[in-house]
Amino acid sequence: MSAPPRPAAGAAPAPVVPLALGDLHASLADPLLDAMTFLNEVTSRYPDAVSFAPGRPYEGFFEPADVHDHLDAYLAHLAGRGLDREAVRTTLFQYGPTKGVIADLVARTLANDEGLDVPPESLVLTVGAQEGMLLVLRALCATADDVLLVSSPCYVGVTGAARLLDLSTVPVAEGPGGGPDPEAVVAAARAVRAAGRRPRALYVVPDFANPSGASMLTPARVRLLEVAAAEGLLVIEDNPYGFFAREPGSRPTLKALDRRRQVVYLGSFAKTCFPGARLGYVVADQEVAGPGGRLSLLADELAKLKSMTTVNTPALSQAVIGGMLLRADCRLRAANAPATAFYAANLETLLRELERHFPEPERARLGLDWNRPEGGFFAVLTVPFAADEAAMERCARGYGVLWTPMAPFYPAGGGECRLRLSISSLTERQIVEGVAGLARFIRAEAG
Amino acid sequence: MSAPPRPAAGAAPAPVVPLALGDLHASLADPLLDAMTFLNEVTSRYPDAVSFAPGRPYEGFFEPADVHDHLDAYLAHLAGRGLDREAVRTTLFQYGPTKGVIADLVARTLANDEGLDVPPESLVLTVGAQEGMLLVLRALCATADDVLLVSSPCYVGVTGAARLLDLSTVPVAEGPGGGPDPEAVVAAARAVRAAGRRPRALYVVPDFANPSGASMLTPARVRLLEVAAAEGLLVIEDNPYGFFAREPGSRPTLKALDRRRQVVYLGSFAKTCFPGARLGYVVADQEVAGPGGRLSLLADELAKLKSMTTVNTPALSQAVIGGMLLRADCRLRAANAPATAFYAANLETLLRELERHFPEPERARLGLDWNRPEGGFFAVLTVPFAADEAAMERCARGYGVLWTPMAPFYPAGGGECRLRLSISSLTERQIVEGVAGLARFIRAEAG
Repeated sequence: MSAPPRPAAGAAPAPVVPLALGDLHASLADPLLDAMTFLNEVTSRYPDAVSFAPGRPYEGFFEPADVHDHLDAYLAHLAGRGLDREAVRTTLFQYGPTKGVIADLVARTLANDEGLDVPPESLVLTVGAQEGMLLVLRALCATADDVLLVSSPCYVGVTGAARLLDLSTVPVAEGPGGGPDPEAVVAAARAVRAAGRRPRALYVVPDFANPSGASMLTPARVRLLEVAAAEGLLVIEDNPYGFFAREPGSRPTLKALDRRRQVVYLGSFAKTCFPGARLGYVVADQEVAGPGGRLSLLADELAKLKSMTTVNTPALSQAVIGGMLLRADCRLRAANAPATAFYAANLETLLRELERHFPEPERARLGLDWNRPEGGFFAVLTVPFAADEAAMERCARGYGVLWTPMAPFYPAGGGECRLRLSISSLTERQIVEGVAGLARFIRAEAG
Repeated sequence: MSAPPRPAAGAAPAPVVPLALGDLHASLADPLLDAMTFLNEVTSRYPDAVSFAPGRPYEGFFEPADVHDHLDAYLAHLAGRGLDREAVRTTLFQYGPTKGVIADLVARTLANDEGLDVPPESLVLTVGAQEGMLLVLRALCATADDVLLVSSPCYVGVTGAARLLDLSTVPVAEGPGGGPDPEAVVAAARAVRAAGRRPRALYVVPDFANPSGASMLTPARVRLLEVAAAEGLLVIEDNPYGFFAREPGSRPTLKALDRRRQVVYLGSFAKTCFPGARLGYVVADQEVAGPGGRLSLLADELAKLKSMTTVNTPALSQAVIGGMLLRADCRLRAANAPATAFYAANLETLLRELERHFPEPERARLGLDWNRPEGGFFAVLTVPFAADEAAMERCARGYGVLWTPMAPFYPAGGGECRLRLSISSLTERQIVEGVAGLARFIRAEAG
């Protein structure tokens, strides 16, 4: 078969006028995007540095051959449920239900690992938690008058999704125990309402938040749900790191405490399985009353929106993650015990080495401090100088250490002297070396 | 490890108030979504009917065991390019470049199959062509004053994506040869401009369009590019069906004719490989001038937006499709020769059986007609009665045949007496039986 004809090679190309960035959507001029590009590319620019920058999981537990076994386990599971060869083939290869095909396995895993009792019908499988965020924000925020409250500092994925949809966000400062301070939420919601707008939802990462590493104490969780109910706010709980507690299972998720169906829960398999599947999910068990009082689930409404973003979450990804869940008996906490222990040991190493290099009273003299997260991937260091991209470059070039400036995570400014340290992709030895280099850098900058 | 504590079982649940659909985003109240839900679910509601409804590929060519071989072929390719074990693992399992990892293979395939010479840097791998549409619409349409022109009838995915982003669309009637009539495009663009708004881009499926099945003749393609350039319109070319011509390679894509970088090209592997990978791509080789005259590629700007929709296209999907491309020597036309022959034979069967059941002059007497596409999955039948969802139900229940009402594909109304017939997922025998049932239904309705 021949390729279609091409234009004559001798034809003079017509003049080409570049598009103007100013004529494209405003979110493309957002400095947040440049910061994210910087975050994403920084590791590749300094390949030999110890990088505390990326929030990606440690990959020593990954093995390509396992993918075959996961896939086969899922296909065998389908056959075991009575699907014939053709139906198995259809599930793997074809377009499928917009809400996904492994909701039952995810629901069983949530019951086992989080004590969450959610019907599979309330789940939508998404292309990472990011797509889930986009769908939830789009569904809930109907007009320019609807406002999303976010913690500050905040994960850039949610503020970015809001920008893409032209939605307004209002930052709420993190409380002393981590998470948005409940009383500050009340004040922010009332201020939004006083300005004639509708505070619609609150985005929160209650466990080991990106970027702060902080977690909400249980009383703060209960109080947050109370004030959200009183202020008519839905709570969007994003929980990619909850598994990686140094003392697992110590605190309930907001969704586990939710008696009023006021929490929409975003989950991810990026850290508990692997990022390359890009698999996440939304639990949206809220009822929606349509014309004539007809009730649907918010999950079904999100699926309608999903048909306009990606149509389906890849069946291939669902099959491989489904196989991982089956092989783990739908208990990811147990399956992730080695990873959890690895991250916990890394975090302890980081905090111990910081303490060793900067004991009191020198730490106070330098104006240096850091938080002490109880798990997860991140900790935050406050330094006595601007921790901006230029400082990061100096640190990488002169000391072979990379980290992430915190300022881009503050929607309304702040965090200029803070930097995020991620321990998730490093070995113990790299952390020891990295903190040593970082300590030399900090002394040089502070001196 | 124990699960987190759950609330006391005896606690009385608080009253739960449903959300109001009217408080959610307006696109959720769009009847188009109900029509799409109907399209997606209809096959499952009549499992024994002959279904001319779904636009999905025939799956007789799919074999689950092949997935393993595709994946291994891609991993071997990475190793052959010098990546060590760790780098191969990182590519498959981790977060990766937002633009994707197989752009080189896709570019080679486009060169081989379409005569398209595009640099890999101008490609963004997406979660189906649908995500590509969403990104392109979001980038190009900056404000509520920007208008997207679409052919009428039009694929519902693009009008849906526009609704999700609160963008305005203006329909342009298909010309006699298929595709939007170039002179009608001029008139529509001028009318939009006269109303004080900016006609920004034109969405078109030039080959075997969904839903009309029609294709643009080459002179109409050349003329469309001329008028688009004169009116300052970018052209969004969506080409999921171009491979499946009864006489392959007879017409160039708009992108192959594009000398002014005015065409953004959307591709899909859903029909040429398989839908369950959800892999598509955008070719966006337009230059974008930013602050200080700094030039970037539109593809890089789309990738920034993609970091807010799905972050990455699954590496797993890219690896499996990458393996399929490698095993086909980056020549999907040749690899798809059996599928192409199958679809062409099915289309001939459909047209032959329609002719056999409704020869002239009876056809004219009944007020019946159909188009004669030169390839692809779809043909359109005009009937002497309302071809709505109620009629479809009657046909399914009484005659065991399913099809798709055309009216939802007309953004500004129309198509009430038209129905779409898809031949892609049927056998010859099913088509013969299906047309026989359809013929009985049409005679009953017309009588």
